[in-house]
Amino acid sequence: MSTPDLEALEKSDSLADYRTAFDLPAGKVYLDGNSLGALPHVVTERVGEVVRSQWGEDLIASWNTHEWIDLPRAVGEKIAPVVGAAPGQVICCDSISINVFKLLATALQLRPGKPVILSEAGNFPTDLYVAEGLQNLVGEGRCELRTVGADHLLEALDDEVAVLMLTQVNFRTGAMHDMAALTRAAHEAGALVLWDLAHSAGVMPIYLDALNVDMAVGCGYKFLNGGPGAPAFLYLAQRHQNLAQQPLTGWMGHRRAFDFDPTYESAPGVEQYLCGTPGIIGLSALDAALMLFENLDLQSVRDKSIALTGAFIDGVNRRQPLSPFDCLTPKDPGRRGSQVSLVHESAYAIAQALIERGVIVDFRAPDIVRFGFAPLYNSFTDVDHALTVLEGVLSSGQYLEPRYLEQARVT
Amino acid sequence: MSTPDLEALEKSDSLADYRTAFDLPAGKVYLDGNSLGALPHVVTERVGEVVRSQWGEDLIASWNTHEWIDLPRAVGEKIAPVVGAAPGQVICCDSISINVFKLLATALQLRPGKPVILSEAGNFPTDLYVAEGLQNLVGEGRCELRTVGADHLLEALDDEVAVLMLTQVNFRTGAMHDMAALTRAAHEAGALVLWDLAHSAGVMPIYLDALNVDMAVGCGYKFLNGGPGAPAFLYLAQRHQNLAQQPLTGWMGHRRAFDFDPTYESAPGVEQYLCGTPGIIGLSALDAALMLFENLDLQSVRDKSIALTGAFIDGVNRRQPLSPFDCLTPKDPGRRGSQVSLVHESAYAIAQALIERGVIVDFRAPDIVRFGFAPLYNSFTDVDHALTVLEGVLSSGQYLEPRYLEQARVT
Repeated sequence: MSTPDLEALEKSDSLADYRTAFDLPAGKVYLDGNSLGALPHVVTERVGEVVRSQWGEDLIASWNTHEWIDLPRAVGEKIAPVVGAAPGQVICCDSISINVFKLLATALQLRPGKPVILSEAGNFPTDLYVAEGLQNLVGEGRCELRTVGADHLLEALDDEVAVLMLTQVNFRTGAMHDMAALTRAAHEAGALVLWDLAHSAGVMPIYLDALNVDMAVGCGYKFLNGGPGAPAFLYLAQRHQNLAQQPLTGWMGHRRAFDFDPTYESAPGVEQYLCGTPGIIGLSALDAALMLFENLDLQSVRDKSIALTGAFIDGVNRRQPLSPFDCLTPKDPGRRGSQVSLVHESAYAIAQALIERGVIVDFRAPDIVRFGFAPLYNSFTDVDHALTVLEGVLSSGQYLEPRYLEQARVT
Repeated sequence: MSTPDLEALEKSDSLADYRTAFDLPAGKVYLDGNSLGALPHVVTERVGEVVRSQWGEDLIASWNTHEWIDLPRAVGEKIAPVVGAAPGQVICCDSISINVFKLLATALQLRPGKPVILSEAGNFPTDLYVAEGLQNLVGEGRCELRTVGADHLLEALDDEVAVLMLTQVNFRTGAMHDMAALTRAAHEAGALVLWDLAHSAGVMPIYLDALNVDMAVGCGYKFLNGGPGAPAFLYLAQRHQNLAQQPLTGWMGHRRAFDFDPTYESAPGVEQYLCGTPGIIGLSALDAALMLFENLDLQSVRDKSIALTGAFIDGVNRRQPLSPFDCLTPKDPGRRGSQVSLVHESAYAIAQALIERGVIVDFRAPDIVRFGFAPLYNSFTDVDHALTVLEGVLSSGQYLEPRYLEQARVT
């Protein structure tokens, strides 16, 4: 794709105005919204108000007057339409890791006699670690993590599988699973599905209810722009609610938390999945960020995402100095999320050189540079600029300078 | 105690200047710092900086440049001296409920063959609920919650007990356990101890290391003033580290989180107890609030706490219109925390009438009004004012007005 083509795309971008809703660092192209979403202006205002006015002035009364106590549910209900869920099925709390634990334990109860959690070997590690932790805790006879390559999932779906746990968009490759087909296959095998939406929620339409998904988790700090370490969310389909008891039975999931009963009685519905006292400042930041999703057409977001990643892949293919890269991300737009992963043996140094030149990307060991595209604030001009800087870094060999090879702790 | 006595106490208050470090609502006496600590000015500044500058401008790089990745450990190390712990034993993460789950599972591994978690029937419910949840998950043969009255703890410490789990200061009564004696008794019976410091951390010296405590959890949002739903903390004595595997094995507790290994390998030491991505805004708020504890003599805080609660109890005893109250909190200062709990059949209405008159207290079902005293910002003038308003409400019978009887959701 030539630069004039990118200019045309830029001019016809129906989401271009959303960019003004974000604080973006001057002189940089931020392509890491798949790791940490940018800051919406509305969040700055809201956090200031929550700290100074709600906490500072109204103090303890804010649990009622500013409805802090209701925030996990209220934020969940704002996320629900973003993931295609009717009300009463999504709640915002804790981290993805903690929520996976709650839901896996639930799945094992809903499918008694089936001990297996089936997942993909390349799944995001925390999901696998949590399954491993549950297995170690309850014993292998009752819980057994089985991982296979993505191509062998269907044949591994035997009658021992209680739940198929997958991440919709892979964090390394950007490849997207066919949620409809895999959910159907799991159901045919008598298993439930647990989808991790970390790299998809907010950047494409998701149809949890329509696809008959059983369980899902997702991230508040990537494409939902809720801030660093924002609370996660979890979805449990209505038909599975109140049939099992999640194991992290903290007081906020009690039917009457403020009665301080000595024995646990779970709240009805998805509120059972609450555990401890919610972090109100972080929850409020995410709540404010979700204002951007009101009246937002997620199909437009998806269309722009495909156009951005497509234009980037196309540029990599056309620019000769970029030929040393292998593109790990599927070229079929229907099979990729909103990132492009390029493979190069000097990936770490290239990522550092790009960052120094204001193109903010990240590195994933051992050899991947990830370019994430957030349709609400990334533009086709960003694509063009990133390609040009990348070409400069590659063709000049500047990335070979020794200082780029220092290993950072987090990338 | 007469008002002139309170004036004398006020004049000799060595901590009086700390009050200026807090935002306190004008025209109110805030006596609920045992539920939600007041806002330190330094937190407002820090949160603004974290949102606008660290997140907004530096974005993903802040995990390194602003050391977000290190915050759970760094905040833990600031809490360590507050609870009498040498470095390397405290970490700040998740909620008390989640941390109790991690530590109870650890305790059962450290005491194989002993299935019992012994606690007090009147313990804060979430601790009991979590033990119940663990029991349901792993099965009663491997984990069994046993609760007895506080007076029967010693005789219940038999050789089946893996861990004695107690809250140092009771949330309802304000009574304080003898941590030294109970820890010793548990150890003599071959059990570990897990102390919940929710109502004591930050308001008195605590000697976890010196008393040979095994495990502890505590709250960031009460006397540590970290903000609503601030992350909790967890202590595991050095001698127990790396001998067991906590079950909530999220990626942040991995030895090399950013290697994205497919199998879990726990981080050494207390960092194993991390699970998901930490909520940076909330953690930063608590980190800033802990600046107030630098160079703070916790014995002075305890002395003032005893003087405040003592003056309040004394005032209740001396003022005749307050004679209908029973004081649930021990009169022996060595046996109480930093709150006074008064019992009255119209406790709910009385609490509402006090709040309307600017004395912020809370109600605990069925019949308790709690008066919490935070030595860093409450004064002896606050005590005098609260007594005078309470006397007015009682002697006038104003609390009998029907509007005070409406049931609030949270109190």
